[in-house]
Amino acid sequence: MLQTDKELLEIAKKCKQASRRVARLSTAVKDEALHAMAAQLEKDRELIFAANAIDVKNGKDKNLSPAMIDRLVLNDLRISGMAGALRDVASFHDPVGEMSDIRTRPNGIQVGKRRIPLGVICIIYESRPNVTSDAAGLCLKAGNAVLLRGGSEAFHSNKAIVESLHKALKTTGIPPEAIFFVPTTDRSALTGLLKCDDYIDLVIPRGGEGLIRFVAENSRIPVIKHYKGVCHLYVDKDANEEMAINLLLDGKTSRPGVCNALETMLVHQDVAETFLPKAAVVLRKKGVEMRGCTATRNILPEVAEATEEDYYAEYLSLIIAVKVVKNYEEAVNHIEKYGSEHTDVIVTDSLKTSQVFIRDVNSSVVAVNASSRFSDGGELGLGAEIGISTTKLHAFGPMGLEALTTRKFVVTGDGQTRHDIKW
Amino acid sequence: MLQTDKELLEIAKKCKQASRRVARLSTAVKDEALHAMAAQLEKDRELIFAANAIDVKNGKDKNLSPAMIDRLVLNDLRISGMAGALRDVASFHDPVGEMSDIRTRPNGIQVGKRRIPLGVICIIYESRPNVTSDAAGLCLKAGNAVLLRGGSEAFHSNKAIVESLHKALKTTGIPPEAIFFVPTTDRSALTGLLKCDDYIDLVIPRGGEGLIRFVAENSRIPVIKHYKGVCHLYVDKDANEEMAINLLLDGKTSRPGVCNALETMLVHQDVAETFLPKAAVVLRKKGVEMRGCTATRNILPEVAEATEEDYYAEYLSLIIAVKVVKNYEEAVNHIEKYGSEHTDVIVTDSLKTSQVFIRDVNSSVVAVNASSRFSDGGELGLGAEIGISTTKLHAFGPMGLEALTTRKFVVTGDGQTRHDIKW
Repeated sequence: MLQTDKELLEIAKKCKQASRRVARLSTAVKDEALHAMAAQLEKDRELIFAANAIDVKNGKDKNLSPAMIDRLVLNDLRISGMAGALRDVASFHDPVGEMSDIRTRPNGIQVGKRRIPLGVICIIYESRPNVTSDAAGLCLKAGNAVLLRGGSEAFHSNKAIVESLHKALKTTGIPPEAIFFVPTTDRSALTGLLKCDDYIDLVIPRGGEGLIRFVAENSRIPVIKHYKGVCHLYVDKDANEEMAINLLLDGKTSRPGVCNALETMLVHQDVAETFLPKAAVVLRKKGVEMRGCTATRNILPEVAEATEEDYYAEYLSLIIAVKVVKNYEEAVNHIEKYGSEHTDVIVTDSLKTSQVFIRDVNSSVVAVNASSRFSDGGELGLGAEIGISTTKLHAFGPMGLEALTTRKFVVTGDGQTRHDIKW
Repeated sequence: MLQTDKELLEIAKKCKQASRRVARLSTAVKDEALHAMAAQLEKDRELIFAANAIDVKNGKDKNLSPAMIDRLVLNDLRISGMAGALRDVASFHDPVGEMSDIRTRPNGIQVGKRRIPLGVICIIYESRPNVTSDAAGLCLKAGNAVLLRGGSEAFHSNKAIVESLHKALKTTGIPPEAIFFVPTTDRSALTGLLKCDDYIDLVIPRGGEGLIRFVAENSRIPVIKHYKGVCHLYVDKDANEEMAINLLLDGKTSRPGVCNALETMLVHQDVAETFLPKAAVVLRKKGVEMRGCTATRNILPEVAEATEEDYYAEYLSLIIAVKVVKNYEEAVNHIEKYGSEHTDVIVTDSLKTSQVFIRDVNSSVVAVNASSRFSDGGELGLGAEIGISTTKLHAFGPMGLEALTTRKFVVTGDGQTRHDIKW
């Protein structure tokens, strides 16, 4: 167990040194390493299962909820999933080295921007052990070293996965410090890590709101985070009713426990009387509980009253808050007040209303006539996802490989000076 | 004077409300406002001079250095400069609303990214009153509201400038809260502002290292900063000597007090014996003091010894540290160890060496055969500059209008759902 801030600083420093070597690797070497990592995980599955069994036993002894135990358990399917994800990352376009915005200035210097790795990325996560290999793969492909700090529940599983990945790295010449497992789950050690701003370039916390707030409040390193997803579906007066019900069902019922699921439906008053009864029938059939405003309850007397808290709630379950709005402006104001700047959807056939909705709603993903469930790195075409940001800085929305890089300016000339020089 | 955190929160909240209106403004309205602001500053110059005279008198009473008084003083030329800068910003391309990376996914949804304002930007600055109108103009053009918190030395000048800008806004329909002057220079009030992470999206501190560290360590809001510029000129074995001397003189002597001036020269050992004596002659002629390593002093015995501190130093004056390096790798390692990731230059005629230098040096601006003094928003073609970032996140290097915006995902479909929906 590593405890002192000095030891953590030493880890971060080694990781930084490794990051310089990773930054220089060719795409071919990185992709070969990703394939080797995938193969090694499959080869080591029994070792990983044995370590995982300890975590699962400890979890049961600690009375973790069945849902938490389920997240923790590794089986053949999940190991194959992890290996498959690494192979997918190998197939993605390498963002490093890409030049863009190249222009020649009047004095003849050529100015462009070159995409470069960030350096060292620290991923702080909770119970899912698959995050270990997913994050390692994405960070490596984007040319970064990664510091992995998983939760105590998955400690043995995470350690076994990293040991397996290190075996694969041995054949590639990539230093093992490029994928660094922090061998402690102590919270004070976490605070120590968050002070290493000279060596760590970015922290991405993944887990519950408590962990994320702790990281955000204690970090000197830039943090990319999202707390929750309170996603809205606004059924405009010019909405296609059938489409609205499809998007409502997909958004609310296809996987209610995820952050891009719908939590609130806003319905324009001009269509509420015809639309809400139809929506109520299908929602009831799918086992969804509605909680509504007074206008909703005038149309659907059986619906329970929605409180102020309901409109702020991320239910993550089969409940939906409903509000009838007077007009477009009230819908947008509601989203502004109660939303989480994650993902919001309008259903409308009006070109004008769709355009102002796209302009006015400040969420990381704004959708017109498409499901909130598309707010996902894979679905948006980013390849894979390292997380979702509702911080507007650097990355906003689902983050793929590109969000793990930055761009520097490259200036090339043939001796240009800013001022005339006389010796 | 506003003191309590509650009052500051109220200010930040009003600024956030105003930011929503600013975000919706058309380019034409913003440009008209910028021209009105420029004209009003010129009209109000006597009022501004009167306020400035109070600051200058207070500064002299407090024994501020002549350099600080010089930064503080406003005169006709500086007012014209401020008005001219606002008119320049009006002429720049508006980044807001730009769509990019538009692709159609296999299921027919169209995914793109739309450039949007950040929201509320807080600029914390010290003595130069021109920052008030420069920052207000850039933030407005990028569709943001701005919270201006200037230094105590320029308090009356800053206040008079903002009052003048507000007169101009009256004719435009833009709320005055879009350019909000925080009427206190108290440091505890600063801490209060830095806690308003629900309403302020970005903090940019501009000033001395003490102020910047204070902001970085006390902010819950993302901060974009740069501490210092320790810029290197590496004279490679394949360098053109005459070009190297031109770039050396431009970088070191054209304006030694700025962050993109050179502080250290690295010279490849193969050319040191011929190059250093020539460089020494011209540097001496320009009044530049050299401090060198042992190898340098073997060639130039009159040169003083450079200490470890010299290689870390941002002299901002006519001194340069010199080191003879064995090879390219030693040069890059030196830059990595002692540099500040600001701006570094190589002089070489070798295509291969220039390419690896561009790849290996992790600075925000990497230049080949061009002066470090081009590391500036205007020179790089960004239009104007709100600051320079040596934080890799969000923006890296000189920051123009684009760095004051972010991008959200826009998804448009015709009813696509992620899963097949049956009612």
